[in-house]
Amino acid sequence: MSLLVVGSVALDTIETPFGKAERIVGGAATYIALAASYFTKNIAIVSIIGGDFPKEMLETFKKKNIDLSGLEILPQEKSFFWHGRYHLDMNTRDTLETQLNVLTKFQPKVPEQHRKAEHVMLGNLDPKIQMAVLEQMKQRPKWIVMDTMNYWIENTLEDLEKVIAQTDVLIINDEEARMLAQTYSLTKAARWILEKGPKYVVIKKGEHGALLFGKDKVFVAPALPLEEVFDPTGAGDTFAGGFIGYLDAVQNYDFEHLKNAVIYGTVMASYCVEAFGPEKLLQLNQNAIQERYQILSDLVRFDHVYPF
Amino acid sequence: MSLLVVGSVALDTIETPFGKAERIVGGAATYIALAASYFTKNIAIVSIIGGDFPKEMLETFKKKNIDLSGLEILPQEKSFFWHGRYHLDMNTRDTLETQLNVLTKFQPKVPEQHRKAEHVMLGNLDPKIQMAVLEQMKQRPKWIVMDTMNYWIENTLEDLEKVIAQTDVLIINDEEARMLAQTYSLTKAARWILEKGPKYVVIKKGEHGALLFGKDKVFVAPALPLEEVFDPTGAGDTFAGGFIGYLDAVQNYDFEHLKNAVIYGTVMASYCVEAFGPEKLLQLNQNAIQERYQILSDLVRFDHVYPF
Repeated sequence: MSLLVVGSVALDTIETPFGKAERIVGGAATYIALAASYFTKNIAIVSIIGGDFPKEMLETFKKKNIDLSGLEILPQEKSFFWHGRYHLDMNTRDTLETQLNVLTKFQPKVPEQHRKAEHVMLGNLDPKIQMAVLEQMKQRPKWIVMDTMNYWIENTLEDLEKVIAQTDVLIINDEEARMLAQTYSLTKAARWILEKGPKYVVIKKGEHGALLFGKDKVFVAPALPLEEVFDPTGAGDTFAGGFIGYLDAVQNYDFEHLKNAVIYGTVMASYCVEAFGPEKLLQLNQNAIQERYQILSDLVRFDHVYPF
Repeated sequence: MSLLVVGSVALDTIETPFGKAERIVGGAATYIALAASYFTKNIAIVSIIGGDFPKEMLETFKKKNIDLSGLEILPQEKSFFWHGRYHLDMNTRDTLETQLNVLTKFQPKVPEQHRKAEHVMLGNLDPKIQMAVLEQMKQRPKWIVMDTMNYWIENTLEDLEKVIAQTDVLIINDEEARMLAQTYSLTKAARWILEKGPKYVVIKKGEHGALLFGKDKVFVAPALPLEEVFDPTGAGDTFAGGFIGYLDAVQNYDFEHLKNAVIYGTVMASYCVEAFGPEKLLQLNQNAIQERYQILSDLVRFDHVYPF
């Protein structure tokens, strides 16, 4: 088992109707690695931070067996910073400020000992950086999973499509899938994406769950009906972390295992949104994860009873 | 088995990106009764039409064992008419014209022989009319299911709440549930509705499936991932028809049967949207229904495989 995670490690200021959290740890790689750490133990992050990043968090990563040899630190610089505010419905948000800071200098360097990682999770980043990581791998990983966002679809589509062509699973949300495939139907969008290279595509639909599409297969995954979403930040990355962490643990990519990967991703995301930032992801255990897996299983189960 | 259906029987002109159908048969009671007719054989409609309503359709109803003794015909008047146009995404539509016509004179009369119907389905209508039907029943029906829409929530909330209080199951879409309960969270909205009287609430979410809430129970039902929606008109009524038709057939209201009612409602709605108006609902058979039931069952099924 070995998992290489590429993505931002950041500081976020988050405003929700429930309150405000200032300069807390965030970033795609943070959420992915923390979520994956409940499933597998050989995780390495490739990212970049500034001198302002809290040292305690680096210790926390290490305690969770997350290798930081690929985490570049520029002590004189500032970490990537994002400031966002969620609307009352928690489904939409405004970005109030983005400071790229160290990200402008990010040239990912995959440490020698991680260039044969079995699994690579490409968190949302400039597709050029995602590709630069793939190019440093000494052998084709068993499974490459990637995330992206509307910005790259709008601005760097050509580069993005090159990464998608290399990928086993694209994880994307519904709006992005529609934008990428230029069709409203998610089923058509999924088929369009599958023709570009990936074996599977996962379309995340927030409170409506997720869809997993393979060439001739579909799986509809529920979301947990929550009374309250406290902070949605990182939910998508957390989903991806649970997904790839599970696959790294089981080393099996048949459809039944992929369904389970989606469900475990859903479980991790459902916990993530219960507190500010990655706070909740630091406090979980396998019992809590398995309990919620069972709830999701019960939520959708039905057995045929008459009339035909 | 006996089912009384109250709702409009109408003529619709429908425009979609795929074409236009002029003055075709529609109305909530039409869709409900046709969908229910695949499950149960003792159905009666209470509604009103004008002299312009096509006679052949009345024959079709009768062939499907739908009793029309409660269908008032005003030969000198015109039927309720609706003209709508769907947007490209098929999720939103503009009403171009509504002619209430005979509906302005509608005083529902439940024929003597139907006043002991076991099941009553109150299709979307003025809640005063829905209540007038309930008041004519000689005994409390075993199960009352109702539908409504945003117009009644906005304009006749007090009357609406009186009907809701009498109802066993409220079927409502997500936007209407949020409007009614004045909260964004569908889980909270469902709890709010359950406190008003109904034993269960079904929240329809279109392409995202449906949620069934009981006091301490939730069921998440998938929608069929469709490549193309041809015409969404009547899908919600068709869902309700499959739901109540199934319950009238099985006469069992435990949670397992209610889940099946939701799934059969989903099956019927998935067929409804494949052609203009109720066209597809005239051509189904139990094999076709059972086939799609099985597809829905397979879509959500997952079994636990490692790691915990």
